[in-house]
Amino acid sequence: MNAVAAPVLADANVRTMLAQFGLDVEYTRSEGNALHYTDEEGREHRVVDFACGFGSLMLGHNNSEIAERAKQILDAKIPVHTQLARHSHTNDLAAALNKIIQRELGTDEPYYALFGNSGAEAVEIAIKHAEFDRLQRAQELLGGIEDHISAARAAVTEGTAQVSPEAYDQVGVAGSTRFEDLIAEVRRRNEAAAATPPLFLTIEGSFHGKLASSIQLTYNEMFRTPFKALSAQARFVPADQPDALAKIVSDERVPVLDVVVEDGTVRVVERDFPVFGAFFLEPIRGEAGIRPLSREFAQVIEQVCAELGCPVVSDEIQCGTGRSGAFFAASHIGLRGDYIILAKSLAGGIAKTGVVLVREGRYRQDFELIHSSTFGKDSFSSLIALKVIEMLEADGGQAYRAAVERGDKLKAMLEAVRADFPDVVKDVRGRGLMLGLEFHDQSEAASEVIREQTQHGVIGFAVAGYLLRKHNIRTFTTASALHTFRFEPSIHLGDEDIAQLDTALRAVCEILRRQDENGFAVV
Amino acid sequence: MNAVAAPVLADANVRTMLAQFGLDVEYTRSEGNALHYTDEEGREHRVVDFACGFGSLMLGHNNSEIAERAKQILDAKIPVHTQLARHSHTNDLAAALNKIIQRELGTDEPYYALFGNSGAEAVEIAIKHAEFDRLQRAQELLGGIEDHISAARAAVTEGTAQVSPEAYDQVGVAGSTRFEDLIAEVRRRNEAAAATPPLFLTIEGSFHGKLASSIQLTYNEMFRTPFKALSAQARFVPADQPDALAKIVSDERVPVLDVVVEDGTVRVVERDFPVFGAFFLEPIRGEAGIRPLSREFAQVIEQVCAELGCPVVSDEIQCGTGRSGAFFAASHIGLRGDYIILAKSLAGGIAKTGVVLVREGRYRQDFELIHSSTFGKDSFSSLIALKVIEMLEADGGQAYRAAVERGDKLKAMLEAVRADFPDVVKDVRGRGLMLGLEFHDQSEAASEVIREQTQHGVIGFAVAGYLLRKHNIRTFTTASALHTFRFEPSIHLGDEDIAQLDTALRAVCEILRRQDENGFAVV
Repeated sequence: MNAVAAPVLADANVRTMLAQFGLDVEYTRSEGNALHYTDEEGREHRVVDFACGFGSLMLGHNNSEIAERAKQILDAKIPVHTQLARHSHTNDLAAALNKIIQRELGTDEPYYALFGNSGAEAVEIAIKHAEFDRLQRAQELLGGIEDHISAARAAVTEGTAQVSPEAYDQVGVAGSTRFEDLIAEVRRRNEAAAATPPLFLTIEGSFHGKLASSIQLTYNEMFRTPFKALSAQARFVPADQPDALAKIVSDERVPVLDVVVEDGTVRVVERDFPVFGAFFLEPIRGEAGIRPLSREFAQVIEQVCAELGCPVVSDEIQCGTGRSGAFFAASHIGLRGDYIILAKSLAGGIAKTGVVLVREGRYRQDFELIHSSTFGKDSFSSLIALKVIEMLEADGGQAYRAAVERGDKLKAMLEAVRADFPDVVKDVRGRGLMLGLEFHDQSEAASEVIREQTQHGVIGFAVAGYLLRKHNIRTFTTASALHTFRFEPSIHLGDEDIAQLDTALRAVCEILRRQDENGFAVV
Repeated sequence: MNAVAAPVLADANVRTMLAQFGLDVEYTRSEGNALHYTDEEGREHRVVDFACGFGSLMLGHNNSEIAERAKQILDAKIPVHTQLARHSHTNDLAAALNKIIQRELGTDEPYYALFGNSGAEAVEIAIKHAEFDRLQRAQELLGGIEDHISAARAAVTEGTAQVSPEAYDQVGVAGSTRFEDLIAEVRRRNEAAAATPPLFLTIEGSFHGKLASSIQLTYNEMFRTPFKALSAQARFVPADQPDALAKIVSDERVPVLDVVVEDGTVRVVERDFPVFGAFFLEPIRGEAGIRPLSREFAQVIEQVCAELGCPVVSDEIQCGTGRSGAFFAASHIGLRGDYIILAKSLAGGIAKTGVVLVREGRYRQDFELIHSSTFGKDSFSSLIALKVIEMLEADGGQAYRAAVERGDKLKAMLEAVRADFPDVVKDVRGRGLMLGLEFHDQSEAASEVIREQTQHGVIGFAVAGYLLRKHNIRTFTTASALHTFRFEPSIHLGDEDIAQLDTALRAVCEILRRQDENGFAVV
C-alpha cells in the first residue's frame, strides 16, 4: 500500500473534522502516561495523555508488566478460544472479582460472571439478562394470578365466597354478575398490560454504550434518537431528584389485576406488572461531565428499585477497576448493585473484555444456555485481566493509593486554576483519576470565533487541538457535556505532567478571559 | 484462590451440562490444529479440533507467526488506544480489505470500514448504519412528497391543474372537494406509515450474533424469542423460495401517498415507504447446518433489495477470511453485498476485531460522527488482522489453495462415510474448510437413550462427548441444526487428523446403526 496515495477508508469524515483542529496526528509510540507523535516538520513530541483510552489505561500505555504477561501467555501456547469447555482462567477472574466485591461492597453473596468483549457488549448482555429475568417475573406474577383465579372460581362454585359487586364496576363489566365475565375481562386487561414493552431507567447525561440497544440508555440525543425505532426505550431521571424519579415510576407504572378471596368475598386488586427492565447507573457519570452520584440518590434508587423488583445495574466501565481510588467507584457511596459491569481498564490496555457480574439472588442460570459469545471467555483477555487485578491488589492496594494521591494532586491544581479564573472555570469535579474541569458556557462570548465554535459544538475540539499542538497535552471534553474537559490519566502521571497541564490550562483560561479571537488556532 | 474449593462463578450451568457428557475438560496447550488436555487419570490427550473457535482459527491455534507479530507490536510500544487521532494501521487494514474486494468481487467501488470488537458488534453496527440510512431515505421520500404537495398547491391555486375526483375517494375523504382536506389526509396517513418500526430480512436458520438487537436476526427461537420485546424484528425467508420472499415483501410493504401533477390533473399515487432496514445473509449459513447460499437465490435477493432500496448485508463472520477457499465466500456465488461483515478468523485467534465494510454508494459518512467504540480501531487488533491478511495472501494465495485442498480431502472422507452409512448419514455439505455432516433424525430411534437424548436436544452433546473422550476429536453440532456436525478446522489439518476423524465418525455411525443403548456413554 502506498501511504501517500492510499484513500482514507476508515474514519474519513472524523479525520477531516480532526484535521480542522490539528488533532489528526498519528501516535507512534507510547509508554506510561505519554504518547509520541512526529509533526509536519519532522519533530517528535512527547504528549501527556489525560484521555488515556477514555478511561482504559489505568495502568498506563503499553504497561511493561502486562506486555510481559501477554508474551508469556503466547509463549505458553495457552489455548485462546475453546468454547464449550472448562475455562479455569475465566473462572479465576470471576473469583478474583468476587473477592474484591466481598471486601469493598461488604457482601458474601456470590456474583456470577457473564463475559463479552467490550463495555457496550457487557451492557447489551445486562439488558438481555434483565429482560430474561423480567419475563420470568412476569410469568410468575401472571401464573400466580391464574392460581388465584382458580381458587376464587372454586370458592364461588362451592358457595364459600361471593364476588364483591364493586369488582364488576372496577374491571368495567358493570352490567354483568357472572364470575366468568369478570375473569375474562381481567385476563383481557392483563394480556394487554403484559404486551407493554420493557422500559429501562437511567440518569440524565448517562453513557452506557453505543450498540443498537445500549445506545437507547445513552443520554446524548445526537447519538441516540436516530436509532429510537430499533430498541426498547429508557426514561432519563434527573440526578438527585427523588420526586422526579417517583413521578416517572408512577407515570410508567403498568397495573395488572389480581383476584383475591378474603372473608368470603372475591375482590379485584391491582398489582404492578414488571415493566421496568433495569435501572442503569454510573457511580461516576463520565460522559455527563464527570459527575459522581450522591450517596443519598443512590439510596433512593436502590429503595425504589427494590420496591419495583427491578435490578440496579452499576456501570463501572469507566469509573471502575481502580480509577476512583477503590476498585469499585460504587464502594465510595455504599452502593452494591444487583449487576456490576466492568470493561475498559480491566483489559489492561491490550486485550478486550467486558463482564457483567450478577448477584446470586438475581441471577438466572438458564441465561447461560441461551447467551454466548465466540470471543468472550477467551483465555488471553481473561489472563490479562487477572494480571491487571494482581497489579492493582499488589502491596496492599498501592495502585489504589496512587490513584488517590495522584488524583488529589491533580485535583488541587485544577482547583487552583479555578480559583484564579472563576470568570472562566465553572467547576471542578470527580474523584481519584477521574476528574473534570467545566468551563463557563461561551455561547455568548465576545469573541466571534469562540462564540461560533461554541454554538457549533466544536469549541472543545478547538481547545483540544490547541492543548495538543501548543502544550503537548492530550484530552477532550466529555461526550455529552461539551464544556467539561476530562482528566483520566494513568497512575503513572508525574508531577511534571501535572505542571505541564497547569501551564496549558492557564493559557487556555487567559485566551478565554481575553476572548482572544485566534487564540486556539493551530492550523 | 484455592482451585479445589473455588466456586464456579462463570458458566456454572453450562459446566454442569458439559460434565454430563464428559465435555468439561480444560485445554491447557494448543498449536496448529490440536488441543491438549489432561484427563482424570493424569494422561495427556492430543485432540484434533474441528470446532476451531467456531470458525475463528483459520490459521490454527496459537499460530507462531501471528504470536511473533503480537510480540513485535508489544515490544515496539505502538499505542493501542488513541481514540480521535489518525489510525494508519486501521486504515491500512481497510485498504487491504478493499484490495481483496476489488480482486474477488470485481468492483472498483470503495468500501468504507467501521470497526467493532466482535462479529456480533459488527452486526449491531450494520443494523445501526442501516437504520441511519433508512431514516434518511425516509426523509428524502417524505421531503419529496412535501415538494410535490407545494407544486400541486401552486398549480391548483393558479388554476393550471385540478384535483382528480378519484383522489378524494382514494384517500378516504370522499365527501370533500377541498385540496387542503386531501393533503391533510395524505399527511395523516403518511405520518402513520412512517411510524412503522423497521423490519429486517434474513434467511431461515440464519445466525447473526447474540447481542440485544442482533439476536433478533438469529433464527433459533430459544435464543431469540425471550428478547423479542427489546428490539426491531426480522422476517425469516425460506432459502431458495423466491415466491416466499416476494410474499413477505408484499405482506410487509408500507405504502405512503404521493401527489403528482400530470396534464393539468392532480393525482394521488402510492410509493413504498422504506420499512425494510436491511437483508442480512450468510453466503454459507453456519449455524443453519453449513448451508451454502445458491447463486440463484443470491441473485433474487439482490434484485428484490435493489428494487426496495434496501441494503444487502453479506455476513462473512464465519465463512469469510479464507475459509471457503477464497477470502470472501460470497465470491463463489457472484454476490457483492452492499455491506460486508468480517470477524472471527480476521483477528488471528488472539486479538478481537469485527468490521463492517459499506460500499461508497450506500455509505453515510455522518454515521462516523455519532457512532464510536472505545476498543474499536485499536492498533493491536488492526495490526494482527493485517498480519492475517498478509499470511493469507502470501505466495499467491497459498492459504486459500490449502483451504480448498484440505477441504476437498476432508469432504471426500465425509462423503465416503455417508456412502457407507446412508441409513445413518443424511447429507454432507459445505465448501473449503466449512463442512457439515448431517445425521438422520433419531427422534424415533429404537434405542431409548438415543431417542430421548434426541428429543431433549442433547444427542449432539452426547456424540460430541463420545468423539472427544473416545477418539480425541473435538466438534459440536451447529447451533440451530442439531443433527449437523460442524467441521471447521484450520489449514493445518493433517492427513492423519482426517484419518482419525474417519475412524471416529465410522464408530459413531456403527453405534447409530446398531442403536447401541450406551454407545455414546463416557461418564
